[in-house]
Amino acid sequence: MRTFPLALLLLAPAAFAAEGMWTLDNLPAEAMEAKHGFTPDAAWVEKVMRSSVRLAGGCSGSFVSADALVLTNHHCVVGCVSDLSSKENDYVESGFLAREHSQEKVCPGFELNRLERITDVTARVRAATEGLTGKAYSDAKKAVQSELEAGCVGEDAANVRCDMVELYQGGLQHLYRYTRFQDVRLVFAPEHRIAFFGGDPDNFNFPRYNLDMGLLRAWVDGKPARIEHYFPFDAEGAQDGELVMVTGHPGSTQRLLTVAQLELQRDLALPTRLLYLAELRGLLGRYSAEDPEQARIAQTDLQVVENSFKALLGRLQALQDPQVFALKREQQAALEAYVAGDPERAARYGRAWDEIAQAQRTMRNIHARYSLLEAGRGFQSDLFGHARRLLRAAAERDKPNARRLREYGEAALPRMRQQVLSEAPIYPEYEKVLLAWSLGKLREHLGTDDAFVRQVLGRQSPEAVAARLVDGSRLADREVRTALWEGGSKAIAASQDPMIVFARAVDPEARAVRKRYEDEVEAIESKNAELLAQARFEQLGTSVYPDATFSLRLSLGEIRGWTEGEREIAPFTELSGLYERATGADPYALPGSWIGSKDQLDLSTRINQVSTNDIIGGNSGSPLIDRDARIVGLIFDGNIHSLGGAYWYDERLNRAVSVHPAAMLEALRKIYGAGDLAEEMTGR
Amino acid sequence: MRTFPLALLLLAPAAFAAEGMWTLDNLPAEAMEAKHGFTPDAAWVEKVMRSSVRLAGGCSGSFVSADALVLTNHHCVVGCVSDLSSKENDYVESGFLAREHSQEKVCPGFELNRLERITDVTARVRAATEGLTGKAYSDAKKAVQSELEAGCVGEDAANVRCDMVELYQGGLQHLYRYTRFQDVRLVFAPEHRIAFFGGDPDNFNFPRYNLDMGLLRAWVDGKPARIEHYFPFDAEGAQDGELVMVTGHPGSTQRLLTVAQLELQRDLALPTRLLYLAELRGLLGRYSAEDPEQARIAQTDLQVVENSFKALLGRLQALQDPQVFALKREQQAALEAYVAGDPERAARYGRAWDEIAQAQRTMRNIHARYSLLEAGRGFQSDLFGHARRLLRAAAERDKPNARRLREYGEAALPRMRQQVLSEAPIYPEYEKVLLAWSLGKLREHLGTDDAFVRQVLGRQSPEAVAARLVDGSRLADREVRTALWEGGSKAIAASQDPMIVFARAVDPEARAVRKRYEDEVEAIESKNAELLAQARFEQLGTSVYPDATFSLRLSLGEIRGWTEGEREIAPFTELSGLYERATGADPYALPGSWIGSKDQLDLSTRINQVSTNDIIGGNSGSPLIDRDARIVGLIFDGNIHSLGGAYWYDERLNRAVSVHPAAMLEALRKIYGAGDLAEEMTGR
Repeated sequence: MRTFPLALLLLAPAAFAAEGMWTLDNLPAEAMEAKHGFTPDAAWVEKVMRSSVRLAGGCSGSFVSADALVLTNHHCVVGCVSDLSSKENDYVESGFLAREHSQEKVCPGFELNRLERITDVTARVRAATEGLTGKAYSDAKKAVQSELEAGCVGEDAANVRCDMVELYQGGLQHLYRYTRFQDVRLVFAPEHRIAFFGGDPDNFNFPRYNLDMGLLRAWVDGKPARIEHYFPFDAEGAQDGELVMVTGHPGSTQRLLTVAQLELQRDLALPTRLLYLAELRGLLGRYSAEDPEQARIAQTDLQVVENSFKALLGRLQALQDPQVFALKREQQAALEAYVAGDPERAARYGRAWDEIAQAQRTMRNIHARYSLLEAGRGFQSDLFGHARRLLRAAAERDKPNARRLREYGEAALPRMRQQVLSEAPIYPEYEKVLLAWSLGKLREHLGTDDAFVRQVLGRQSPEAVAARLVDGSRLADREVRTALWEGGSKAIAASQDPMIVFARAVDPEARAVRKRYEDEVEAIESKNAELLAQARFEQLGTSVYPDATFSLRLSLGEIRGWTEGEREIAPFTELSGLYERATGADPYALPGSWIGSKDQLDLSTRINQVSTNDIIGGNSGSPLIDRDARIVGLIFDGNIHSLGGAYWYDERLNRAVSVHPAAMLEALRKIYGAGDLAEEMTGR
Repeated sequence: MRTFPLALLLLAPAAFAAEGMWTLDNLPAEAMEAKHGFTPDAAWVEKVMRSSVRLAGGCSGSFVSADALVLTNHHCVVGCVSDLSSKENDYVESGFLAREHSQEKVCPGFELNRLERITDVTARVRAATEGLTGKAYSDAKKAVQSELEAGCVGEDAANVRCDMVELYQGGLQHLYRYTRFQDVRLVFAPEHRIAFFGGDPDNFNFPRYNLDMGLLRAWVDGKPARIEHYFPFDAEGAQDGELVMVTGHPGSTQRLLTVAQLELQRDLALPTRLLYLAELRGLLGRYSAEDPEQARIAQTDLQVVENSFKALLGRLQALQDPQVFALKREQQAALEAYVAGDPERAARYGRAWDEIAQAQRTMRNIHARYSLLEAGRGFQSDLFGHARRLLRAAAERDKPNARRLREYGEAALPRMRQQVLSEAPIYPEYEKVLLAWSLGKLREHLGTDDAFVRQVLGRQSPEAVAARLVDGSRLADREVRTALWEGGSKAIAASQDPMIVFARAVDPEARAVRKRYEDEVEAIESKNAELLAQARFEQLGTSVYPDATFSLRLSLGEIRGWTEGEREIAPFTELSGLYERATGADPYALPGSWIGSKDQLDLSTRINQVSTNDIIGGNSGSPLIDRDARIVGLIFDGNIHSLGGAYWYDERLNRAVSVHPAAMLEALRKIYGAGDLAEEMTGR
């Protein structure tokens, strides 16, 4: 139990310089100057923006050489490493190194986005939605957003991506224009054992000893891209107490949710998802234990499940802390009092909380159905995913852009196509296990007598349905998917592939519950959150930062340890500690390369470190940079206290965990014989 | 979401005749007469008491013939059915029928207890604890309780069991004296498929179609026991709206918990247990899917895990209902106001809520450690269970009775011995899987750097530790356990069996956290709950019933359906519905015997029914009787709304589910060729 006075802590402004994920066009310049004596100029901001990249799958990264070498985490590239592996060549186990450009291998489905321009389109969106509510509001907003995105992409969809970014819960509408790099190749990945040393037990903990790094390269026109902006390595790293910044793409925070929304998270959304993940974790763990090949197949999924489980559990625990909840109530009450204090404000904003609360009640009613039918919990299968994307892409492409489901808008189609045509292998037996299990969840949560369940299962068991669909489908063949994608709605309508037939049969119900969610929950939340964000602007001005939105942010912090109960946790770990911790048994087993190279290494080399930067999932692979925009770390995790960061930031305990540059260079040079890469990264 | 006004519903007294699990010495005679025109006389009460039995493992049952035939649920005997099975003879799959007494097979570790006498010893206990608090209070209470139990058992420990039963959260202290039947034999069990038709999906749901019955027989001196009191079958059953009563042993309700205790359940105890069970369920489900023999081995565990999971989830959902929680707050506030209304009462009871709240804070701190080290979550293994029992029994038997851990008191020792010497088979590979997994949980929840975890795992993986312990231990051999039990502390001290060595190594820490729990949580809760129960007595008189305590209770109700949303659920199902629901695929596959016999059956025979009786886990196997004390049903489940019954009873929705007597007789006669048993049960 935390016993310090939370309210005091959170409301004291000066102490919280490390809180905040700032957009690059609105950095807290005064606070930076005051606290760190550092004011970034326009060139510095541009360099940071152009050196940072987003991995379309949900990670961050950065360019670290003029030849477009990209630094990110091993756990951000492990899907590629696994896809490139086979039973004979398991690069997850053995690691991967391209000794020259020609050996760099294309990562199936990978894409890098580099932010080029931010445009404020708030006025356009507001004009298009003025005076509207409910479905009309949400339709109008979707329409104008799709139009803005399409206009921004223009004719160059292959190379340009544009995303609407709603900041301050819709209070600001920004248009982000990215350069797309779709030819992304794997350059280096260490063995999974050293990247994820300590495994799930050490995940979200510290001290840590992980080389959680991976190197990609962006290729253009059949050769490595040449780029202007990148971060060179600083082999020394930063010192205890030094200013360090994280530039990256934090996925999502919910720091402005109302109490009713937080209660839904605490009582329904988080518990049901955690229970789903826990059971899936038990299944995947056992599946992996049966056979090494099965372990290889399930490895990425198991890692994702375990990581999500721990992260969401941390969030749930934060929400279950009565003190945190009381603080949230206080903050809400303060804004309510501010709104009530003026009749005009009251008329404009006063009903927002109640409307959001009503949307939560609706969500409680449709939550199970929405999660299972639309969000995928009832259909865990890559083949089903392909089938649904093909089916919906065909149907949506026949509609005008503004009327489409958002992920099938013109701007999003190239990415969708890439997903459908991914080279990632599909394992039929594994597909059957997961699909059968998730069809069982469908029946469990909706009930045997539910009409949709009866339609899906008929008189068959989930196992039989899964076997019939997986065995009968030809969608594992990329050529088949290509033909269906190209053939559009005519080809889809003619298809008798059982997975397509199945996806077609379940689609009306899935779309129906999605529509209820979008119209009766999302639209209400979005509109009222925008009102509350406006009220909050009026009250607090520009001193606040927006919730994370998987768009580029800068977080300010310092290298600093923390006090855990009665123990002081030092900010750095060294290679010597790694060798002390190694037991020879997974997840504390070192790969052979590390055992054999021990004598060559400088064991006082720093390997991991913690800093006070305010980060969250999506920041994985972010560079930690100093004021000279040099790499002084590679973010790969947060400590256990960082998990409540979804809802609040606690500078005393919340820490970001990163790989130290010295260990990356030492390992490349002395363990992997990749001195050339080290030279490329240090700019020599 | 329930939308009716809960508070109104719960506080209206007349509407709630069906609420309550009454002790047999305090039946609500006036209410029974007023509502049902039925006042049970002393002979009726004695007959009910002597015809009811408790299964030591956690179920209820009843004598249904003079030759001590015992009716209970299949799911209460499936452990025995499984233990008696082998790869060649899988009685879980095929069912079991003894065609004559000589074919009845001893159920390993089974014991039946029949209540003979209830003695009020409240004054003795109160005298021994007067003026004491904390550890002194708890020690004194334990001492006098053990003394009372031992005195009650006397010299006849083989045939007599005595348990202290604390009613009204300690407000009343009763001593229950039972006759023990330790030679319990399996007479009949249908196929698992028909007993658990609909499996986990249908569990806690209705309409249902289950023959969840099993027949045991109590033997004495090598032949079937002859008994005076039993319930004969009424083949007709009861009609819609008729008074029906459940006599049985509801395990545990928490209807008087304070708000602080309910918060601990909602935020910590239930979620952590559910997440543990969910992962275990995933593991066991996959383990079972690998191989039919593995499925057979894991079947009982999987069924227990799925059942617990669903039941606890129902409880959690009840606590997450803001209306229920608000009602609990109101009820507590009413009692607080009553106590505050009088200075003497305030002085006596006024601090109880705060002290209980403080105990909850302590529990939050020790919960993980207590669950893992002492409550078994860290050591899922039958061999470990044997090792701990042997180790502790040896140590505790060397102490005076009053100083022992309660489950090793003189009165409890025979049962403990029986557990240790159980014939139940142990499967080494399965043991390894579960032990390795649970050791992993130990590390996950306490952390890799925890001193205890380091002690347990050393430099090995959980898998390696589990393999070493299971492969090296000889405790699977009952002779080895017998020798260690008989040899006492000397034999234990000399044992080098790795599982004994391991249990010895972890015992100091496990005992330490148990001691903290008992002294700083349990004792505080118990003492203050007693004070609150006294205050409640003062306020509400004798009109209230005590929480369930796995002791004999009578519940009053009626055969009655309910309204689910907009649907009317009828109270009875018939055999015709079973055949319509059968798909041929598990869990809706019928056994061959039922498919082949369809034409012989009267398909209008009722099979399952619902009634308003207030029941909870532990009532499984309870007879449903009419006012003539004849069997009109066999309780085997509650509907989904009954799961909140841990905390409150809602007569409009909460329903008990039972097997109809007509279906039991029809199946015995026409499907299983067991007409003799049917005759024995109908008293012909």
